[in-house]
Amino acid sequence: MSVITIERKILEKNDEIAAENRALFARHGVFVINMVSSPGAGKTSILERSLERLKGELKVAVIEGDVQTDLDAQRVARYGVPAVQIVTRGGCHLEANLVRDALKNIDLSGIQVLIIENVGNLVCPSNYDLGEAMKVVVASTTEGDDKPLKYPAMFRNASVLVINKIDLIPYVNSSLSTLRGNALQINPALRIFETSCTTGAGIDEWCSWLAERERTTG
Amino acid sequence: MSVITIERKILEKNDEIAAENRALFARHGVFVINMVSSPGAGKTSILERSLERLKGELKVAVIEGDVQTDLDAQRVARYGVPAVQIVTRGGCHLEANLVRDALKNIDLSGIQVLIIENVGNLVCPSNYDLGEAMKVVVASTTEGDDKPLKYPAMFRNASVLVINKIDLIPYVNSSLSTLRGNALQINPALRIFETSCTTGAGIDEWCSWLAERERTTG
Repeated sequence: MSVITIERKILEKNDEIAAENRALFARHGVFVINMVSSPGAGKTSILERSLERLKGELKVAVIEGDVQTDLDAQRVARYGVPAVQIVTRGGCHLEANLVRDALKNIDLSGIQVLIIENVGNLVCPSNYDLGEAMKVVVASTTEGDDKPLKYPAMFRNASVLVINKIDLIPYVNSSLSTLRGNALQINPALRIFETSCTTGAGIDEWCSWLAERERTTG
Repeated sequence: MSVITIERKILEKNDEIAAENRALFARHGVFVINMVSSPGAGKTSILERSLERLKGELKVAVIEGDVQTDLDAQRVARYGVPAVQIVTRGGCHLEANLVRDALKNIDLSGIQVLIIENVGNLVCPSNYDLGEAMKVVVASTTEGDDKPLKYPAMFRNASVLVINKIDLIPYVNSSLSTLRGNALQINPALRIFETSCTTGAGIDEWCSWLAERERTTG
């Protein structure tokens, strides 16, 4: 069917641009992560806590992807880091060319880590390489422990899983060990962190690991 | 750009089939809702509580849409209602032709209400008419109160908003009145219910309204 062919062409073109982005990041020694999750899992909150924690240690820039509004870029810009908002106007995921365009507004020579916060969507962003070093999927405890089984591509394509809102575990019908088990069943290589942006739990461990990754590969 | 044209053709074709589905539902006097939300907002839990509450009052059938697994159809089938699972295998939304195919497994003359639970995704399902009488968007308090502003198409295209997990309000940095206000700013005609599947709050009000709608239009 022709639609599949065209979808394939879009993905091929996307992969080409993603490779160019990746080469650009390598030339500047910038470590890039692509954060993905359901809407409201807490990507922006984790980002805010991480920017607080990494201040003075790592030079970070942020690209925010949203269907509509620049609310997230506003939140992030308060932490004094370069922040660019991509508004997709209905588009359900970021593509490599949108990131390439956003990069025109960031001085890569001045930063060490670029965090791209994708559109909140557990399906579509899994297919689109942006040129990142790794995808980080955020899953909150309130979403239920079955999400890795129901949205396997996202968990398979990610290198890191951040389980967020662990402070809410006592109040939800969801098991942390079942969630971990389901995630590892889909992707046994996942590095898992457990965080709460309300209590601050786990943020230090996640940020230390990120800084260590940057030192190793940046 | 050719991609846009093809996307338009897909949507036109989808709308044609949705109109056929709608005519079929009308012939059988079946009231159909299309439930949409982020992954893990609680669509299936609301469905389970609703099936309990409506037992003996309304004959309900369910079509479940998921990227992978038939976990949800299994959950729903326990309530003794006809349940058909559509597995999209990576597809990020249901389309009218998938629903048409699923209908071959349901005896429409034996039911009054058909509930279609869409793939968990706040973006893509908003564009695809399935032939439903109305879209019901579920938003949970744990997702934050800004979601209507960030995913406006879904809230604009829905007739009903169910705010779920209201029992978690004391534990999250999210305001019920801000969420309601943001939703009504995007769609002033939204009928809003507030529910908790843990405490059962609001389920009776929602189900009474649904039964009343069925009586009026079915």
